[in-house]
Amino acid sequence: MRALNERIRREGKNLGRGILKVDSFINHQVDPMLMLSVGQAMAARFYSCEATKVLTAEISGIAPALTTALALQVPVVYARKTRPVTMHPNAIEATAPSHTKGSEVKLMLSPEFLGPGDRVLIIDDFLASGQTIGALVKLAQLAGATVVGIGAVIEKAFEQGREELAHLNVPIEALAVITSMDDGKIVLE
Amino acid sequence: MRALNERIRREGKNLGRGILKVDSFINHQVDPMLMLSVGQAMAARFYSCEATKVLTAEISGIAPALTTALALQVPVVYARKTRPVTMHPNAIEATAPSHTKGSEVKLMLSPEFLGPGDRVLIIDDFLASGQTIGALVKLAQLAGATVVGIGAVIEKAFEQGREELAHLNVPIEALAVITSMDDGKIVLE
Repeated sequence: MRALNERIRREGKNLGRGILKVDSFINHQVDPMLMLSVGQAMAARFYSCEATKVLTAEISGIAPALTTALALQVPVVYARKTRPVTMHPNAIEATAPSHTKGSEVKLMLSPEFLGPGDRVLIIDDFLASGQTIGALVKLAQLAGATVVGIGAVIEKAFEQGREELAHLNVPIEALAVITSMDDGKIVLE
Repeated sequence: MRALNERIRREGKNLGRGILKVDSFINHQVDPMLMLSVGQAMAARFYSCEATKVLTAEISGIAPALTTALALQVPVVYARKTRPVTMHPNAIEATAPSHTKGSEVKLMLSPEFLGPGDRVLIIDDFLASGQTIGALVKLAQLAGATVVGIGAVIEKAFEQGREELAHLNVPIEALAVITSMDDGKIVLE
């Protein structure tokens, strides 16, 4: 996706250790027009999957998942990391290590909002090691739903998340693919 | 906003102690079409404020803030509750008690994304006691920006947040106003 690649080239910062700072347009400040285009591009790639729900993880996944769900005209569910008092007592849980926070995160999902019969498109801001997305897949499977696709705004291909998720045998799409962050560079595919 | 009121009547649950469960369409599962209408309705009410940025707090504020920012064609910034490794070291901080989590939350904002000259429209899912929104106001002020309006998707009028924020002398709008949750009811204005 050209507008996204241009934005990464212009504003992305390589902080070292594989950490990409894109918080001027994706995960602290968000450009809503770019995010709308991201959702439309994502929806176009997954249209034939006939998803009934989009699933993401709070926090940074919410914006791209919302615009994808808007384009597909289906609800979006975001897995919670902290349990709100309003959450169903039988919430489903899965854990994933957090790359940017250095600890393990627990993802929780209310069984009210995902179940057998649901065809789930997983959307997240990053596909890196694949562990957060792996936890979302687990949540969907525990709910009895079927994962039909996985989409990331930005893939860090050198972290092998795509290989990690290949056994699921579902389409995996990324709108921007970074092949290397060695030597302080950001190399886009 | 009629579609929102109808949705609250149909799906909202009064859990007692002033806690309203609307997680089937606002803060766990999100209806993107309703959220787009919410953003458009919000933008219409604040159009004349000439906001340069929309500011919200993660997590539940992100969806309505994003669609409002989309309608106003300005960036949205969400204050973070946990510090990502990508955050600017001189982040501005303010604290607010969390009604639904029972503890105090710290909101952090990078000075890169809000500053003098910015006209800030604050958007959140709820206006209850006004304390989270009060913390967002403080963040904006610490950044040197001017708050030009405050919008909430749902106001719990009986918690007096509007009175709490009145001294700011800016327009405060809510798309749905709940006047009472006594006796297990949800009374809409």
